Amino acid sequence: RINGERLWDSLMEMAKIGPGIAGGNNRQTLTDEDSEGRHLFQTWCEAAGCTMGVDEIGNMFARREGTDPDALPVYVGSHLDTQPTGGKYDGVLGVLGGLEIIRTLNDLDIKTKHPIVVTNWTNEEGTRYAPAMLASGVFAGKHALDWALDRVDAKGKKFGDELERIGWKGDEKVGDRKMHAFFELHIEQGPILEAEGKDIGVVTHGQGLRWIECTVTGKESHTGSTPMHMRKNAGRGLALVTELVHEIAMKNQPNAVGAIGHIDVYPNSRNIIPGKVVFTVDMRTHLLDKLNGMVAEFNERAPKLCEDIGVDFSCEIVGQFDPPAFDENCVKAVRDAAERLGYSHMDIVSGAGHDACWINDIYPTAMVMCPCVDGLSHNEAEEISPEWAAAGTDVLFHAVVETAGI
Amino acid sequence: RINGERLWDSLMEMAKIGPGIAGGNNRQTLTDEDSEGRHLFQTWCEAAGCTMGVDEIGNMFARREGTDPDALPVYVGSHLDTQPTGGKYDGVLGVLGGLEIIRTLNDLDIKTKHPIVVTNWTNEEGTRYAPAMLASGVFAGKHALDWALDRVDAKGKKFGDELERIGWKGDEKVGDRKMHAFFELHIEQGPILEAEGKDIGVVTHGQGLRWIECTVTGKESHTGSTPMHMRKNAGRGLALVTELVHEIAMKNQPNAVGAIGHIDVYPNSRNIIPGKVVFTVDMRTHLLDKLNGMVAEFNERAPKLCEDIGVDFSCEIVGQFDPPAFDENCVKAVRDAAERLGYSHMDIVSGAGHDACWINDIYPTAMVMCPCVDGLSHNEAEEISPEWAAAGTDVLFHAVVETAGI
Ligand SMILES: NC(=O)NCCC(=O)O
Ligand SMILES: NC(=O)NCCC(=O)O
Repeated sequence: RINGERLWDSLMEMAKIGPGIAGGNNRQTLTDEDSEGRHLFQTWCEAAGCTMGVDEIGNMFARREGTDPDALPVYVGSHLDTQPTGGKYDGVLGVLGGLEIIRTLNDLDIKTKHPIVVTNWTNEEGTRYAPAMLASGVFAGKHALDWALDRVDAKGKKFGDELERIGWKGDEKVGDRKMHAFFELHIEQGPILEAEGKDIGVVTHGQGLRWIECTVTGKESHTGSTPMHMRKNAGRGLALVTELVHEIAMKNQPNAVGAIGHIDVYPNSRNIIPGKVVFTVDMRTHLLDKLNGMVAEFNERAPKLCEDIGVDFSCEIVGQFDPPAFDENCVKAVRDAAERLGYSHMDIVSGAGHDACWINDIYPTAMVMCPCVDGLSHNEAEEISPEWAAAGTDVLFHAVVETAGI
Repeated sequence: RINGERLWDSLMEMAKIGPGIAGGNNRQTLTDEDSEGRHLFQTWCEAAGCTMGVDEIGNMFARREGTDPDALPVYVGSHLDTQPTGGKYDGVLGVLGGLEIIRTLNDLDIKTKHPIVVTNWTNEEGTRYAPAMLASGVFAGKHALDWALDRVDAKGKKFGDELERIGWKGDEKVGDRKMHAFFELHIEQGPILEAEGKDIGVVTHGQGLRWIECTVTGKESHTGSTPMHMRKNAGRGLALVTELVHEIAMKNQPNAVGAIGHIDVYPNSRNIIPGKVVFTVDMRTHLLDKLNGMVAEFNERAPKLCEDIGVDFSCEIVGQFDPPAFDENCVKAVRDAAERLGYSHMDIVSGAGHDACWINDIYPTAMVMCPCVDGLSHNEAEEISPEWAAAGTDVLFHAVVETAGI
């Protein structure tokens, strides 16, 4: 079993970097706080005897050698970046859980056949730079490196420039590493495990996602002196599309979701009718056909709704992945580990996207989930118990060591 | 007649300060650009032989002496601040038109009985600091000075601090001045005069306004892993209220308007369901009962719409004025001037709020309007012709000189 107290201490220590305003964290990707978190992680990894590699997109790889020089490493990890109003565990548990495996192996003086590499993937959250899971996506060959480095945030700052500024652009070519397998531990971010009273979620599938960035263009004019019939109010386009997204998600129940989280209004003045609104629709479900159907309905109806009120509508996909099915053997290793350790468990579909979804496309991959209070995540009030964290890391430990061989 | 070419040159010169990104201006109140514009105006006024007074809220008063030491001055003016994406004429024409009157009187070597004072009112637009017409409102006793100085902008900066920072807090007590009358020239900001082919609008009334700042509170959570039935999506509250405002305005036709121009979404992340949205509803009409009825319907229905989707709604009035009726004698002076000068004219209701609406509460007041292209204002593309500017200023000149006596 891993050392649950040490794991919890490390989680609390990391949470001191980039504190939020309500008990959570604001350690967004490629900020000074992100850099500081990375340094702390590196210090811990080196103290545990690992060597650190960093690739050209800032992904970090802490390696513990194995006994077989020809064996490919087993990778384990997640991400240290957070939402602007994020929790202390989303991503962080998966990285520090990986570190805890190394520390436990050291304590027990166990040598694995395959090396073990603990990974921190850059920009998983996708808030500052869309899409989410950007750097694991480049690693998996889904995006070109140059395209990723050219992404800009809301302030116009380039991903590549910010990566260099914080000092975490490495030399390694992205995606050069070969993996024997990849495991990711993550909090569920949803309500199912807690409701079912299970310690462990064995993730068999994930939801697919589409992020559709929409621009509604009307005409800026005076809220007081422009007669109603002469208005082109882009804000009404946003309103109609907001309800459309909700309607499409509802009629695709069960297991479909849709919402708009990001909205920028121009020029955003009390007495100017919005001339332009830019916003991103997030739609997900775990069945590819259903997902494509939702997007098709959206693409058909959104422009019409806007046309009817005299505003223009355009959109582009700024993030997407199809519903992943994880590797049967890796999933079995997770399920067997939970069973062996005596933790209650159930098979589950991940509601959120994860780096594991991309890596699953190129190497055998699986995920372990643990419950979180009220299913709440992407909220500073996100909470888990130390017992849940320890159980998840125990299962991760057993699945990884089983796969890495002794 | 005034010197139209000189007037136009001054308008173009002022427009160089705080240029926008699309041919208009961004010279928002209490910015460095506002300060620079004020300095230029002061230089011009002093060159025209005026003395400058500044009050504690930054209102500027350029005085040309009269021949009767006991006569109260006739005031004329408007505002130099602009919207973030504003035009070159909204407000500016009224201030520089006032200056042009002084210059013309100097050219003609005319002495008026009453002094003439050209005024630049601080923060007319209300974008950076709500409400609009803030400083003329304090002058007219509608707001307490301390309350005004304590207003904060979106970045948390206080009005009073910013006024001191740009160096335009004067010594004069606000509202200490007595007026014989007040005249304001302004572009229409609406489509009526152009459509009717009239050079001059004789403003008899204005619309009343209510600015209702609303907060919809839901619960931040993950867009992917939060099941639809567990969501509290504040963005949907915004959507429903946007359409409610539109519906209320439409059913109060003719001559009623409503829209939401300012919207802030928290935390504004693509994969977080909005936990809070703050926005300002702008409702107007020229009949007080109708306006109150619109607001009453809003107050009744908006909370219910939000309750039905599981989010909280609260609101407060952050700006309001009742529909003004301008002074009959001053209005007649404007109409007579237009008639005498041979300009085509019509009586008109102002769609926008103006400093004149507040001053009208305490001293005899009237307004002159000139057309603007396509009725477009609060847009960088706002445009007028030099002829329209000259005609409006001619009428202003005659009405003012008539009222000030020779
Ligand atoms: N796990 C997580 O929140 N990832 C961010 C990408 C997503 O929105 O699903
Ligand atoms: N004239 C003008 O645009 N004033 C700003 C106040 C308002 O919104 O009416």
